[in-house]
Amino acid sequence: MNFCSDNTSGAHPKILAAVTAANAGAAMPYGNDDLTRGVEKRLAEIFEHECAVALVGTGTGANALALSLLTPPWGVVYCHPESHINSDECAAPEFYTGGAKLVAIPGASGKIAAADFAKVVGAAGAGTVHHAQPAAISLTQATEAGTVYTRDEVAAIAEIARQHRLAVHMDGARFANAVVHLGCTPADITWRAGVDALSFGGTKNGCFAAEAVILFDRAKATELGFRRKRAAQLWSKMRFLAAQMDAYLEDELWLVNARYANELAARLGRGLAGIPGARLEHPVEANEIFVTLPERVIRGLEGEGFRFYRWQGEGSTLLRLVTSFTTETAHVDAFIDTARRHAAAVAPAG
Amino acid sequence: MNFCSDNTSGAHPKILAAVTAANAGAAMPYGNDDLTRGVEKRLAEIFEHECAVALVGTGTGANALALSLLTPPWGVVYCHPESHINSDECAAPEFYTGGAKLVAIPGASGKIAAADFAKVVGAAGAGTVHHAQPAAISLTQATEAGTVYTRDEVAAIAEIARQHRLAVHMDGARFANAVVHLGCTPADITWRAGVDALSFGGTKNGCFAAEAVILFDRAKATELGFRRKRAAQLWSKMRFLAAQMDAYLEDELWLVNARYANELAARLGRGLAGIPGARLEHPVEANEIFVTLPERVIRGLEGEGFRFYRWQGEGSTLLRLVTSFTTETAHVDAFIDTARRHAAAVAPAG
Amino acid sequence: MNFCSDNTSGAHPKILAAVTAANAGAAMPYGNDDLTRGVEKRLAEIFEHECAVALVGTGTGANALALSLLTPPWGVVYCHPESHINSDECAAPEFYTGGAKLVAIPGASGKIAAADFAKVVGAAGAGTVHHAQPAAISLTQATEAGTVYTRDEVAAIAEIARQHRLAVHMDGARFANAVVHLGCTPADITWRAGVDALSFGGTKNGCFAAEAVILFDRAKATELGFRRKRAAQLWSKMRFLAAQMDAYLEDELWLVNARYANELAARLGRGLAGIPGARLEHPVEANEIFVTLPERVIRGLEGEGFRFYRWQGEGSTLLRLVTSFTTETAHVDAFIDTARRHAAAVAPAG
Amino acid sequence: MNFCSDNTSGAHPKILAAVTAANAGAAMPYGNDDLTRGVEKRLAEIFEHECAVALVGTGTGANALALSLLTPPWGVVYCHPESHINSDECAAPEFYTGGAKLVAIPGASGKIAAADFAKVVGAAGAGTVHHAQPAAISLTQATEAGTVYTRDEVAAIAEIARQHRLAVHMDGARFANAVVHLGCTPADITWRAGVDALSFGGTKNGCFAAEAVILFDRAKATELGFRRKRAAQLWSKMRFLAAQMDAYLEDELWLVNARYANELAARLGRGLAGIPGARLEHPVEANEIFVTLPERVIRGLEGEGFRFYRWQGEGSTLLRLVTSFTTETAHVDAFIDTARRHAAAVAPAG
Repeated sequence: MNFCSDNTSGAHPKILAAVTAANAGAAMPYGNDDLTRGVEKRLAEIFEHECAVALVGTGTGANALALSLLTPPWGVVYCHPESHINSDECAAPEFYTGGAKLVAIPGASGKIAAADFAKVVGAAGAGTVHHAQPAAISLTQATEAGTVYTRDEVAAIAEIARQHRLAVHMDGARFANAVVHLGCTPADITWRAGVDALSFGGTKNGCFAAEAVILFDRAKATELGFRRKRAAQLWSKMRFLAAQMDAYLEDELWLVNARYANELAARLGRGLAGIPGARLEHPVEANEIFVTLPERVIRGLEGEGFRFYRWQGEGSTLLRLVTSFTTETAHVDAFIDTARRHAAAVAPAG
Repeated sequence: MNFCSDNTSGAHPKILAAVTAANAGAAMPYGNDDLTRGVEKRLAEIFEHECAVALVGTGTGANALALSLLTPPWGVVYCHPESHINSDECAAPEFYTGGAKLVAIPGASGKIAAADFAKVVGAAGAGTVHHAQPAAISLTQATEAGTVYTRDEVAAIAEIARQHRLAVHMDGARFANAVVHLGCTPADITWRAGVDALSFGGTKNGCFAAEAVILFDRAKATELGFRRKRAAQLWSKMRFLAAQMDAYLEDELWLVNARYANELAARLGRGLAGIPGARLEHPVEANEIFVTLPERVIRGLEGEGFRFYRWQGEGSTLLRLVTSFTTETAHVDAFIDTARRHAAAVAPAG
Repeated sequence: MNFCSDNTSGAHPKILAAVTAANAGAAMPYGNDDLTRGVEKRLAEIFEHECAVALVGTGTGANALALSLLTPPWGVVYCHPESHINSDECAAPEFYTGGAKLVAIPGASGKIAAADFAKVVGAAGAGTVHHAQPAAISLTQATEAGTVYTRDEVAAIAEIARQHRLAVHMDGARFANAVVHLGCTPADITWRAGVDALSFGGTKNGCFAAEAVILFDRAKATELGFRRKRAAQLWSKMRFLAAQMDAYLEDELWLVNARYANELAARLGRGLAGIPGARLEHPVEANEIFVTLPERVIRGLEGEGFRFYRWQGEGSTLLRLVTSFTTETAHVDAFIDTARRHAAAVAPAG
Repeated sequence: MNFCSDNTSGAHPKILAAVTAANAGAAMPYGNDDLTRGVEKRLAEIFEHECAVALVGTGTGANALALSLLTPPWGVVYCHPESHINSDECAAPEFYTGGAKLVAIPGASGKIAAADFAKVVGAAGAGTVHHAQPAAISLTQATEAGTVYTRDEVAAIAEIARQHRLAVHMDGARFANAVVHLGCTPADITWRAGVDALSFGGTKNGCFAAEAVILFDRAKATELGFRRKRAAQLWSKMRFLAAQMDAYLEDELWLVNARYANELAARLGRGLAGIPGARLEHPVEANEIFVTLPERVIRGLEGEGFRFYRWQGEGSTLLRLVTSFTTETAHVDAFIDTARRHAAAVAPAG
């Protein structure tokens, strides 16, 4: 009963089957194979736009690689303080970009507000040689707070970026969860809203290790290729990356998995909301729940074998709970019941 | 009948089975799982030495990461001109090291001669602020020419390195092939001979995508961890890297596969050696054969569906032929027979 | 009547004379000359501590070079948001450090509060591979707000740094102004208070172009030498850097100049404080004054030929006024009188 | 009697005078001053071409900065093995370019032959993701061997570069010496011959510390500005860099100085050529002489107070002798006489 992360799950059976199938026979390495070409075509169809694609094995790799195409080494990349690129990638974006500067813009529930972005970028000293130059903004979709930018929110930020000639990156490690939540097309919240580059996540949502950098302008396709190789992100037996991604896209498995995870998160959120002493910190819009619970409830859950992160370190009563395509409904219900039981036990003392 | 590269093969059935087995249930991400810990322990046993281990998905990643631990950004890494780090990694070592300088030392059949190394490093201006500083030497084992450094050759170079306070890196993308050829232990040609860091290859020899950086001094274990993450080489679902490597080491599969590939290469080499107009360019000591054949023989082979690289580009009559654990004996024999047949046809015209 | 910056002044006559004197005859290049060796010795005496010294031509160079010795590429350098390294060096620190991350800690009047630093560094995730690692804190002394950290303030921050194994850097582009203000020794607010590396400024306070990186631990002296050369900061005709610094230190010229500038700033501050509608934003402790004035007063000053920066861009009524060793008392008084006159004219309308 | 380097000289009196003159009054910093603008205009006139100019304080800075504009981080810069960028800049080019690869092409007397360049670049694997990509070639003019590329030699190499879409850089630390030798215009051997970027040297030939990066295409002028600042090469009191360069260009002082140095080198070369046992290793075309002398002659010279470098380290009998605008004719003649005297004493034993 592990709610620590969507990374604790294995791969979806269909993806395992695809990898197994891809194992037969010889295939040319480094992406010169049919599976890889097929995936690139399929992504173009799903996004209704030609694109340059680079498959890689890690989400940090996808983000850092994408950003390296959008900023010079003396550029500024705006991001939310809690964004993965700012807080959880051990300075990989700084490394891949050759030393660009990540500047954090705080905002409620994991989102940057367009007005805040406008204010910061307006005062950044664009054109003046002394200042690192505004180059890009990165939005996390779904956010690290389990919320989702609406189509209009993305577009408003992208419009400000456009006015200031900044590029727009989207960290879509949980892109599928956002698409499902919004009920939109992938295009709606990417290039149609002004996004230039997307880190399209597969690993958290069913793959072993498969992410894609997607550029909606093919002009930098060649540079993307060189940057991927130089970053040591080009797999030799590329078919095994492609096979994962292919199965992930087939029959909308990526959306099916995300829908399932979102639904369980919603169920968990609803269940916890009614418990005395519980407080949901953010709207539950994707597959993450941030909930504050009384310490004794938390201990009770831990004691009965539930695993999760106390989000602000030891002693914190703010929990992050994550669901995935492997989460069982029974576990969600058990979590709620256990929490309610311990809350009831606590209540009299309260 | 593909002799292009050992990268054209899939994964060994046992490795596929291990990945499939590892898929069950939840596991903590980023290497905090039992499989990963087990692999680290197993490598220490095989190498008879404690070591710091970082599993990664690409050979270029292993090399670049290892080198980044052995040289400052103003350091020189000596290598063979044809080494993978110098010729086939799109400046990844320069990237990962922060701009270190690769200096090529030519040598016959893919090997650096100790005397040449001594001469170059002696004249390098160590200690003088104007010159990039000698920091490391990288040996490829087995070499890019399909040959193998003897234990004494490694030790002689390492001794010179030691005298000049340089570190020794071994690019072991085909390490298994070298061990099998020499009939030595893994320790004999690594730490016992003076090697500090090894890129231990799995991908070419049976894995999907699995390589290990192995440091024989644990002092830099922490730095290795940060560098791997920053380089975006840390898999979240690490168990799938570990499962590959675990099965690769189990029951000496890595040696079994390499022995098979070496034997087929030897068979192919012997077969071609007797053909009129054929010339083996290097001793066949691992799983690569470099052979010059008459143009019409090459065309004949191509016409009958054999695939391989003309090693010096279009029009070159120097071929590289690579065998792997998936190469079929019948294909090797067919290659020889076909070459002999075309050579015979050519001969009268010769 | 230029109050834009201490950079608008030329060099002090004694420094010009020293450069002229140094021009005679031949001298070995790259610091292998007596003047350079003499400067290094003299700095050790002034700071009452052995030190490693690197003379460079720019303050940004001194800062970036110093930081590159204190943090790994995956490290975090804490700094004030308005610090020069964060806001005015076009990502040079990120460049020189190989991609380290500058994290801003806001604080009143240009200073970081020890408690804020403790809180931030405590929550930074030291030791966890996902997070850029706390490595150093940089204090600007005097600050960019024209204030000065007391000895105890420096020591309190350095103690927190020590507890968390962070290094302490001091950007002393206006170090002389701080020493004069505090009436302390140079040692008191550097190594004795826990500072590891100092950017010791000369350019703003009398030199053409001369700054020194000073490390209070000679262990990294060799690395400093290589880093300076690699950064293209090593002058060939080094005697001309050394001659400037030598004259700057001779007879305490550096303190004489700073004392003069501080006194004029204080005079200007006192004079402006009494003007209706004027508000000093920060205590005037060094040679910079931040004053808000009514728009029409500002226009009046501009109209009469006074030059200065509106600190928050066009339309801002917050001015930065900087004095230096070349500022004339008459100009200061004229500034005050002119401002008072325009303020009086404005008042009735107010 | 110092023949070690042109770096051992001080500054020319006219340049000292210009710096002294520039010291009066206030001037806006960072190049927003009339002197700087004047120098940029003057360089455009001298080169008969609009250009983007960045003044810096070191030759290594000029080279590294120029190269960073001509190659991506995964690019190859071809150069002579003995070129300053390859051998004497402690990996500064690698640093400034973000990790580009310097590939050495040997050639007689310090020059790269066009045919060798064509061969190397043709086999470099342009367009293939595995290989660092051919991006630029750097020519040293005058070379490190004291020779000078003819206009046709430059043009032939630049034409090959153009065919392969490489940029052409010229390290002109001794550019004046080359122009004087060839009797051409500055334009003839730069943009007219296909050169894209020039490091225009002043320091060795009369300045304290003044070099200029000159780009003959203004398209990258903005990038040049940001890169200079980020590299910490932007002087705050820029007028002192500009004043040097201005005086250096005034009345062709740069050519006057170089002509003088070249003539003394020629005189020294002629004088030594006639001495028994002496061998000039390269034609003497600029201000450097490479001469092999008998050991006892060398010891005799050393004993009588002549200073110079044994070019291949201790024990080497190959000397480098450098003349400059400060070298005295009497010293040259004394060198020749002394060498002849010792050679005569040696001869009987020979």
